[in-house]
Amino acid sequence: MKDVAAEAGVSVMTVSRVVNGDAGVAPPTAARVEAAVRKLGYQRDDVARQLRRTDQLSQTIGLMVDNVADPFMAAVASAAEDVARQRGSMVLIGSSRADVRREQEVIETFTARRVDGLILIPAAGSHRFLRSAQAQGTKIVCVDRAAPGLDADAVVVDNFGAVKEAVHHLIAHGHRRIAYVGDKPEIWTFGERHRGYRAALEAEGIDADPAIVRHGLRSGPDAAQAVTELLSSPEPPTAVLAGNEVLAFGVLAVLPPDIAFLSFDDFALAPRLTPPVTVIAQDPVALATSAAHLLFARIHGDTSPPRTVVMPTELIPRGSGEIPGPHAPHGR
Amino acid sequence: MKDVAAEAGVSVMTVSRVVNGDAGVAPPTAARVEAAVRKLGYQRDDVARQLRRTDQLSQTIGLMVDNVADPFMAAVASAAEDVARQRGSMVLIGSSRADVRREQEVIETFTARRVDGLILIPAAGSHRFLRSAQAQGTKIVCVDRAAPGLDADAVVVDNFGAVKEAVHHLIAHGHRRIAYVGDKPEIWTFGERHRGYRAALEAEGIDADPAIVRHGLRSGPDAAQAVTELLSSPEPPTAVLAGNEVLAFGVLAVLPPDIAFLSFDDFALAPRLTPPVTVIAQDPVALATSAAHLLFARIHGDTSPPRTVVMPTELIPRGSGEIPGPHAPHGR
Repeated sequence: MKDVAAEAGVSVMTVSRVVNGDAGVAPPTAARVEAAVRKLGYQRDDVARQLRRTDQLSQTIGLMVDNVADPFMAAVASAAEDVARQRGSMVLIGSSRADVRREQEVIETFTARRVDGLILIPAAGSHRFLRSAQAQGTKIVCVDRAAPGLDADAVVVDNFGAVKEAVHHLIAHGHRRIAYVGDKPEIWTFGERHRGYRAALEAEGIDADPAIVRHGLRSGPDAAQAVTELLSSPEPPTAVLAGNEVLAFGVLAVLPPDIAFLSFDDFALAPRLTPPVTVIAQDPVALATSAAHLLFARIHGDTSPPRTVVMPTELIPRGSGEIPGPHAPHGR
Repeated sequence: MKDVAAEAGVSVMTVSRVVNGDAGVAPPTAARVEAAVRKLGYQRDDVARQLRRTDQLSQTIGLMVDNVADPFMAAVASAAEDVARQRGSMVLIGSSRADVRREQEVIETFTARRVDGLILIPAAGSHRFLRSAQAQGTKIVCVDRAAPGLDADAVVVDNFGAVKEAVHHLIAHGHRRIAYVGDKPEIWTFGERHRGYRAALEAEGIDADPAIVRHGLRSGPDAAQAVTELLSSPEPPTAVLAGNEVLAFGVLAVLPPDIAFLSFDDFALAPRLTPPVTVIAQDPVALATSAAHLLFARIHGDTSPPRTVVMPTELIPRGSGEIPGPHAPHGR
């Protein structure tokens, strides 16, 4: 690389940027670097191979989310677009609205435009349909959720472990009847979160009661209605766990302040509510940034086996998750 | 159209979809419709003219926002993408991060891909640079903000009138020292909002004190710091007006509950805070849907003069804006 840089009269950084297809390099400079590569006989080494590949790129990636209006997904989209811009790539955006057929339809329009890669928050359902796109060279990195039926990189958090810890936390504060409100468990994240909920109950010898588990909730109003029903049932829960931020907002619209509450996803106003809301925090910007860097590494020739990157979560106790339940050590 | 439909053996709806460039029509069907149009001698009428134009479309639009992680802009992006999908168009997304040079740079990459049109939340600064894109046929619709120096459609709310009403509301509840926290007034919306704030004070014969006006705040922490400083000043405000949702979250992190508060933009948890938050609500989905429909009308041949669509806002009193000030009719 040094020789190429000296020959072209540019910095090693510039050579690297040309090799990586960075659109920020002026075309005459890029041409000089490419000429230097040819002159110095690098044709058979990685630099030249990557140069050829760069020529064939569309410098466009697709970003497929559930709904970009969801605050978690908006943060993912913003961070992914930031990395893409640094890499000289454009971003096509699509929303599946949790429908794998719509997802497939939009991704087909992406691949018809020869996107170099996809950053994907997969909907529930088989993603075998993406294998042909992979075979044709489209790189795919999943973020937030793994894609069933697909052998691809994924950047996720340990949803199972995080929820298991959170439910143990509620049990330690004296709760046994803990309601779970989530979207359908066929969505990878919700499946894992529900599994974590079950595992904590089982580990503590508490019978899981399906009457206080609600799946398939898609919106705040869905969650508000579910919790209203649960609280007016003969054996109401003493604690509620919400599967994500959108559902948490709905629960909080109707939850009395003496019911313990814990939510997946942190949000700006959580410390300002009465009581302040205990959450499992994750970092959507870090998830998306990591996924985008992984995607561009794949686009530029990283052919190592697919890997799953697990990012940390943090249980942040603020008050709502520490309201004592009927089985608390010192009573209620 | 009916004759064309009969000749092609398809429904009038299908003819209309082909004419409008809907990508959902199977290519053989579209070819049959086009052949029928030619056979029936419609070459000179609108149908044929639009067919020719449709042939030249890239069926891609650009969506340029400040930051897609901002909840208002995420809602705009989601709604715009929904309409685009219905119209068979793809969406390239870009974030200006409030920097008009970055905006120009991203839009140039959009126009290099021959986008049919742009939906734009313009950053502060002249947008004369877009005139050449317009001259080359790229349709542009602004949403949320007008673009200085550009003759284009815009879908906005009456920011001036809405804030003027809100400040009158605070004054009616006994406030004279009303702080304003906003982003820089060169951003069209913030300029209008600040102007509305000034106009209400002037109409009530209250001297505006620049010491309690803070411009150029970009984030929640920015707003929190500004309000902390204002409240510890010798003559602190008795009411605070936040220019948007992101700034409101920052203000709410530090505001004592006895200071009146009013925010531009409604948010899910506003009714759950103590006191519940009085807001000026607008509908980002309606704004973006209207802007997207206007854009596709332009793309498909609407050449009427540029128009500005003004959508309604609503002042929603919930408590924080009705805290009595020192000049309230019945004292504090």
